[in-house]
This record gives sequence, structure tokens and C-alpha cells, in this order.
Amino acid sequence: MKSDIEIAQEAVMQPIKEVAASYGISEDDLELYGKYKAKLTDKLWDKVKDRPDGKLVLVTAINPTPAGEGKTTTTVGLGEAFGRMKKSAIIALREPSLGPCFGIKGGAAGGGFAQVVPMEDLNLHFTGDFHAITSANNLLAALLDNHIQQGNALGIDPRQVMWKRCEDMNDRALRNIVIGLGAKADGMVREDHFVITVASEIMAILCLADNMEDLKARLGRIIVAYNFAGQPVTADDLHATGSMAALLKDALKPNLIQTLEHTGALVHGGPFANIAHGCNSVRATKTALKLADIVVTEAGFGADLGAEKFLDIKCRMAGLKPDAVVLVATVRALKYNGGVPKDQLSGENLDALKRGIVNLEKHIENIQKYDVPVIVTLNSFITDTEAEYAYIKKFCEDRGCEFALSEVWAKGGEGGIALAQKVLETLEHRPSNFRVLYPDDISLKDKIHTVATEIYGADGVSYAPAALKALKNIEDMGFANLPVCMAKTQYSLSDDQTKLGRPTGFTINVRDAYVSAGAGFVVALTGSIMTMPGLPKKPAAENIDVDKNGRITGLF
Amino acid sequence: MKSDIEIAQEAVMQPIKEVAASYGISEDDLELYGKYKAKLTDKLWDKVKDRPDGKLVLVTAINPTPAGEGKTTTTVGLGEAFGRMKKSAIIALREPSLGPCFGIKGGAAGGGFAQVVPMEDLNLHFTGDFHAITSANNLLAALLDNHIQQGNALGIDPRQVMWKRCEDMNDRALRNIVIGLGAKADGMVREDHFVITVASEIMAILCLADNMEDLKARLGRIIVAYNFAGQPVTADDLHATGSMAALLKDALKPNLIQTLEHTGALVHGGPFANIAHGCNSVRATKTALKLADIVVTEAGFGADLGAEKFLDIKCRMAGLKPDAVVLVATVRALKYNGGVPKDQLSGENLDALKRGIVNLEKHIENIQKYDVPVIVTLNSFITDTEAEYAYIKKFCEDRGCEFALSEVWAKGGEGGIALAQKVLETLEHRPSNFRVLYPDDISLKDKIHTVATEIYGADGVSYAPAALKALKNIEDMGFANLPVCMAKTQYSLSDDQTKLGRPTGFTINVRDAYVSAGAGFVVALTGSIMTMPGLPKKPAAENIDVDKNGRITGLF
Repeated sequence: MKSDIEIAQEAVMQPIKEVAASYGISEDDLELYGKYKAKLTDKLWDKVKDRPDGKLVLVTAINPTPAGEGKTTTTVGLGEAFGRMKKSAIIALREPSLGPCFGIKGGAAGGGFAQVVPMEDLNLHFTGDFHAITSANNLLAALLDNHIQQGNALGIDPRQVMWKRCEDMNDRALRNIVIGLGAKADGMVREDHFVITVASEIMAILCLADNMEDLKARLGRIIVAYNFAGQPVTADDLHATGSMAALLKDALKPNLIQTLEHTGALVHGGPFANIAHGCNSVRATKTALKLADIVVTEAGFGADLGAEKFLDIKCRMAGLKPDAVVLVATVRALKYNGGVPKDQLSGENLDALKRGIVNLEKHIENIQKYDVPVIVTLNSFITDTEAEYAYIKKFCEDRGCEFALSEVWAKGGEGGIALAQKVLETLEHRPSNFRVLYPDDISLKDKIHTVATEIYGADGVSYAPAALKALKNIEDMGFANLPVCMAKTQYSLSDDQTKLGRPTGFTINVRDAYVSAGAGFVVALTGSIMTMPGLPKKPAAENIDVDKNGRITGLF
Repeated sequence: MKSDIEIAQEAVMQPIKEVAASYGISEDDLELYGKYKAKLTDKLWDKVKDRPDGKLVLVTAINPTPAGEGKTTTTVGLGEAFGRMKKSAIIALREPSLGPCFGIKGGAAGGGFAQVVPMEDLNLHFTGDFHAITSANNLLAALLDNHIQQGNALGIDPRQVMWKRCEDMNDRALRNIVIGLGAKADGMVREDHFVITVASEIMAILCLADNMEDLKARLGRIIVAYNFAGQPVTADDLHATGSMAALLKDALKPNLIQTLEHTGALVHGGPFANIAHGCNSVRATKTALKLADIVVTEAGFGADLGAEKFLDIKCRMAGLKPDAVVLVATVRALKYNGGVPKDQLSGENLDALKRGIVNLEKHIENIQKYDVPVIVTLNSFITDTEAEYAYIKKFCEDRGCEFALSEVWAKGGEGGIALAQKVLETLEHRPSNFRVLYPDDISLKDKIHTVATEIYGADGVSYAPAALKALKNIEDMGFANLPVCMAKTQYSLSDDQTKLGRPTGFTINVRDAYVSAGAGFVVALTGSIMTMPGLPKKPAAENIDVDKNGRITGLF
């Protein structure tokens, strides 16, 4: 069996200009990064912006399990399948973070014969977008500490600095640090923290910004700290907006690469799906909708986090209307949800499947609340059985969903044609009447309550005193109309990651909240969310190498 | 008067493929980064490596003063002048650091009508080389702290960690920090430091590496810490080499851009000229020598630091033989060296000139010790007088140097033709018999003594006890044969920055030393060297902006 990187390296890529040409994009509207990557110019957007939109298909999944679901693989394979069927289609994905490549997770470019390429470039520096975000984030931090150092005219309270430094690396030792030690010229001492770049508010901002003017407005609104009077201090107050925007000028432009079968892929931005909204940039999605009849995109984690935020944050802000949702599951993951340990998932087990499928059921019901048609797909494994497939198929059809197997990992686009056909039928015959889950003008607590009860299935919400105080302050500052961004474990519908399946009789516990004023949402924290990962005992980095010809090995 | 960025933005650039074609480089041998930047592929090197070398011309300067000398401007203008004369010439420069753009210094792309373009790209992220170095540096740091966290099998002494984290930002608050605070899972507490990316040993390594194999060998030799027994722990010991090299795969390839007049410019790497060797990459210089008859390159700071290291470190390691050295001065800077305050440099003052020209004299004598012909050039200012020019011209000619005025700032290549002609005459008629200043096989102290007395003009060298101990340890570890890299103030020939002109009767004081085992030199520290700059009271960042069309303003 070939590894993902071997399959990717053996692929014969088309020059990206040819891929672009297949979407009617001329070389003049590309900024090439080598032969196989390009950014789309602002000029292209001006040319296409008045075209009618294509159809928007969101790929999401059940709650992630150690068994693996294959959401990106399905997204890529579906794009490949449309290509085989000579349909005009393009995919839109998040960029992977550099840090996890060297830790446990490996890269994120799909898998098997459903990958986007060049895989090594995508997983390493790609077109530098994340480095630009890191630079802008840390410039803001440097300007903030320099302001304190140089007299602190704004009266920034060093105990209430919200802005954290970042790097695109898994580095636990930077989670909690003290800076400014040394002599007088070496800064004021204060506690600080690094987060991984994908957790920077600038990542969320870049992904939600419509254009340069919107980007600058959002950057300027970032609350970096509170002053001694408790009032917010923003990036605009530090005169940091213009230089941050200059650093982000190119990062704002969507990147075009291709699948193994030469379907175009706009891969752009990649915010966390807990403390942020977890999907690729609005720019990429909107551009994709102008370039093809069908756009396949994905959201982070499971549907309770990723799809909910895609729909209630991204679609709300950007005025997007999804036409269909593909919900990815695997037989193994459903059995895991039914209580089977990871090492015993291979044999047929209909009882476990029945116990675990309630997780899928809840996600189907949830998507239906947004009035968007759902297609369930199973990312097939060699250990799956026909009886298991038949059970799941009937289960879905009983609930008004289309169902299709996907074999894209093993077969590429050919393995996704059954799914693609179901998607096409859905787009043709089942109208989407998309609506957001809650209106803007209810209180933040009502919004949190709506998501917790409607989507997670909780009985209610409890608030720690700090959360109540924070929510009141946020509303007092005038941010009551923002959507909420729930930071919750991705492993369970509840806020307890050990509760698999479809938990009932639980409460969501909000321990704190803060406003991402630039991104434009209020983050409600349930449990502790890790924003700076660590490396494992034996990091993946130890296996990565590059030979004298520049060929990379060990990346996965 | 137009600003540098206005001149740069009004320039009509040639597509970089056309610039490349003028050097016989086909599009196949380029990796384009947009239309006006490209990396040169390894394949190109294989094609050209057996060609004869062109002539190598180094541009250096007197000690820097607040009056400004214009070394990069002269280098760029000289390349433009050769272009006007239809000579086959190319320039090789360092990449600027992102950090200083937002502080005081501004960018570094030449000035006036002698600039390399695109200026904004070069000064911001360019092709991502520095970001790749930052990532590799911080991956090594993360792997090191993770090793300590996960059981510390190598017995790393947390009090003797040499490796520092880095970022390409001026951020004084990160000079001295404590990391690893929090809970057990958040790392071991220890003192740490950030340096700016150009001060990372990886920057020096990238600039000295011949190819990927050499890069990996050098990365592997980096001493990251000492263990509890006092023995060195290397990057190879941490199994970090392959993944760092993978991050640096593209950064190793030279970048091609152009001057305002379309002369090619290989701009690649940019190490500090105090704790490192201060010149562009060996790869860029060697490639340039295969692409053109004349290569114009520059070294950092004044000739005592930059040229000495170019000649004794870079040329020694890479087997390069410079054919001529251009020594840049200004009338204003010479008068400043003669004791005139910065705000009184405009009037004719031959007495001050006579007092200050001894600085130039010493640098002329120094270069002549390497047996390479010297051409002195004055970067002209409107306030200079004919009498001042005549005095300096005679002074140089009396010392066996050619002399030419340069007006490239105001006139571009046309203003550099007089200088270019002197350079051509020199290359034709005055042979270079380049030799390094000292052999490999004398002691480190003898090497330091040689540089201090021969180049700086010191009476001798004094060593702090820490320096003596460090030098002994370094020799005991087997590094006695490495060249020395003197970390000294750039503002004086001595180690006291207030001593202008040509100081005499002084001693060089070495306070400490360490080995950069990957780069391959021993750093001798005189005084305290700043490896993480700070931002000023009113940072340049406050004036930088970008408009809705992506046009950047306020960068200089």
C-alpha cells in the first residue's frame, strides 16, 4: 500500500495555469508561486464578481473519533468525481497548519487517491499566508508592549492584555511565559502566552473579510487589552492597522491548487473550529461560486461545531446560502460511538452500529433545522460489511436523507461518482431554504441557549460567575448583536468528551466568554480549550527528511 | 523630491522571466513568485556549474555614521551602470529583515534611482525565506524543550541551553523571558531568549551551505545545549535535522529580482555582520558568477566587520576569489569622522575632511592586506564641493587606489558609469592575488589577535576570564581550526563606538566566545551585541498603510 505522500509525489500535476484556464482564468489574473500554486488577483474578482453564483455544497461530519472520518478526503474526492462527470466544479478548503505536521496529526490534504497537490508545499509553507498572519499578530504584540514601554499613554493595564503572541508550531513551553525581564530597556515584565497561528484572531479576520477595506476595519476593531479604567484598547488605538494590513496584502488573496485529478481547489485560511469559526475564507468561497457551477467546501471538526459555525457565522456574515450538506461518517466511527474500542472495530457488529448511529441521527436532525437538504455518505473501509451498509442506508432514507457510499480514498474520483450523482439529484430536485438558527437581536445568553439545546441536545446552560460577568460586559460594550462562537470539545455533542453517541440529560457549562471584536463573534468557552498544542513523546518531525534532490519523505 | 517607494512604484518592471532570459535562464529553470520574483531551481545550477566564473566585485564601506554611506545604493547603481554599458553583469545582495521595516531603519533595497524592485515585496515577506528560517529555528527549539519535557534522555542542562527562539520582528519584551510556566503538561520552567531571525545560526548556515547535503550536515552540527556533564548536544542528537531541512528546501534557492533598470539581482539570505558573517548566500554568489561576466556584491556594516568576514569567512569557506573591492564613503561621513556634528555637515570643511579621512585610509590599507585592488567611490551629495572631491581623489590616488564619484542615487545607472569604468579598468589591468588574512591552523587567540591588530589597528587583545575559558573549551571540543567571527560595534574600528576616525592606542576587549558549529565559525564577543532590536517611541509601523487596491504607502 502506498503512503499518501508517495501517491502525491507520483502524481503528474498540470501546470496551475492550465488548471486555471479550465475555469476561464487567464495567466494575467494569476500570481504564480512556482508552477503548481497560484494566488488569484483582486483583478480577477473584479472581473467575475457580477456573475451568478454556483451551487454551494458543504461537507461536514459526525463527531470525530480515533477511527477517522475522512471529511477532507470526501470533499476532495467529490470534486474529483464531478471532474470525471465533466461537471463544472471546484473545491474550497482550509490551509493546514505547519505545527501539527511535526507533531502527531500529520498534514491535511485529503488522503489516498483523493488529495490536493502539491501535498508537501501545502503542508509546509504553501504561499506564506500563515507566516503573514504570524507576522501581523506579533507586530501587534510588539507595538502593544512597546506602547507600554514608551510611557503607556493609553493606560493599558498589563494584567488585562488580551492579545497573545503566536507561532505556527506546536510548542507547549510557550503556553505560559513571563516576558520583559532584564534591564529597563528590555520591556515591562508581564505574563504572556503564545497560541498557535490558527488560533490568532487575525486568522479568523482574514477568513471573514470581504476585501481589503473590510480587513482593515476588522483589524482595527481588535481589542488588544483593557485600560486601567476597564475600557477596551484596540489595534486602531495603537495605530497598528495599516502595517498589519500591509503584511496581509497577499495573504488575503485565495490560493489555487489542484486535486490529483486536476479539479481546481481554492485552499485559503484555516481558523480553529472551537475558538473560531473553522472554515476557509469567505473570499475563496465567494470566488469559487463565480468560477464553477458547483462548489464543494468543508467545515472543521464535527457538524455540531464546524457546520453550525459555517452556517451561523460564516454564511450569516457573508450572505452565503448553502444548497446541500454532505454528512460524512464511517461504519467504524459509528461502531466506536456505539461503545466498541478502537482495536475491535473490524468485525461486523450491527448492535454497536445501532447504538452508535444516534450520533449521525442527531447531526442529520441538526442540519435539517437549517432547512438545507442532507446527503449522508460513508467513507468506505475494507472491513465494512454489506449488512452494515444496508442498515445505515435505510436509516438515512427513513429520515429523508439521500445516501451514498464513497470510495474516493481507494479509487479517487471514480469512487465518488455515486455520491456525486446523489448530490446532483439533490441540487436539482430538493430546494434549500437556508435560514440561520437564531436572529442577531436576541441576547448572547439566548443565542448560547439556542445552540446548546437545539444543536447539542442539552437540557440547558449553566454559567460560571466569570462567564456571566464577561457576557454582561460584552453586551455593555455594544456587542450583543454578534453571533456566538462556541468553544467546546469536538469529540462529543456535549461538553464532556467522554460522552459519545447522542448524549441526553446534560447541561452545557460556560466558564468564560470574550469578544473577538475584529472577527465579529463572541466566544463562549466550555471547558478548557487548548490553543497551543504540544509535541508527543516521539514527534513526527523525527521521521521527516529531504534528500539532495529536494524530495521530502516522512510527511503524512 | 520623490520618496524611494514612490520611485519604486512608478518603475515599469520587466516580467522576471524576461530578466532571466537576458541571462540565458529559461522559464523552466525558474520558480515564479508572482510576475516579478523568482527562485532559481537546482536544475539551473546543474546546468551552469561547469562554466567559468565571472569577475567578483565586493562593495564595502567606511564605518557607518548617522550621515549615511549608501553601500546598497552604490551596489545597485553599479549594476545598473554596467547594464547601460551593455556589459554582462549581475548583482548579489542580502535580503532585508522584516523587523526593522516597522522600527526605525526602514527597508533595504537601495535608494533613489538605484533600487531593486519590487521594493515592497522585498521588504515585507519576499519569497518567504526568512519565515522558513524562523520556522526551522523554532521547530528546533520546540523539539529541544519537548525532549526535556518527555524525560530528557540526553540529560540536557536547562541552565546551559544555547539555542534561542527567534522571530523576524523588533520586540524587546522577548529578549529575556521565562518559559514553561503553568501545569506539568506545560513544560519545564527555564529562562529563554528570542533573537531576531537574522541573528539565528540557521541564517548563517543557509548562507554558507553549498547545497542540500551541506545544509543538512551543518544543521546537524548545531550545538543546542550542553548536558549535565558539560558535553555538547546537537540538532542531530535531537533528530531535528531532516525536518529543519525540509522546512528550508525552498529557502535554499536564490531569488532573482531586478534593479530599476532591469539588471538582474540575486537577493538571498541576510545574516547579521557582527555575530555572523553578514553577506548574501554562497549559493547566490556562486550562481551569479556563472550567469554574468561581472558580479557586484556587498558585505554588511563597514569594511572592518563586513569585508573582513566576507574575505576571511565566506571566501575562505566557499573558495571564492574577489577581483576588486569598491570602498564607499561620503564627504559628509568623512567630515563626521573628523568631528563635525551631524547637523553641521553641509558646508565645505577641508580641515574636518583631513581629520576624518583617516578612517577611509585605514580601510584602504586593510583591503590591500588581502592583495585585492581597491576602488574608492564617493556617494555624492548636493552639499559636497569640488575642493572636497579633489582632496579625496588625490588622497586615494596617492595610496594606489582608483577613485570615482557616484551619482547613482540621483541619476541611476547613468550616474554610475564613471565608477563602472574605473572598475572595468581595474579588472582588466590590476590583478587580484587574494589571500585570507590568517591560516586555519593557528590558535583562536592568534586569529583574534590578527584581526584586532591588523584590521582594527589595536595594540592587542584583552580577555575576560569567561572568554578565556570559553575559547579553551571550544578548542578542546575540536573547533580550533575554525575562523573567528568578531562581534564588535560597527561604528568604530575599535570596540568603543565613540572612537571615530582611525583610533590608536587601544585594546580590543573580548568578554566571551561561543562556537557556531553549524555555521562553522567561533564568535568572539566584544561589548554587548544586540540580537533583538526594540521599537522606537514612534515606530515606522504607524505610518505604513495599504489602500483598497493593495498599494502600500509609508514604507521606506
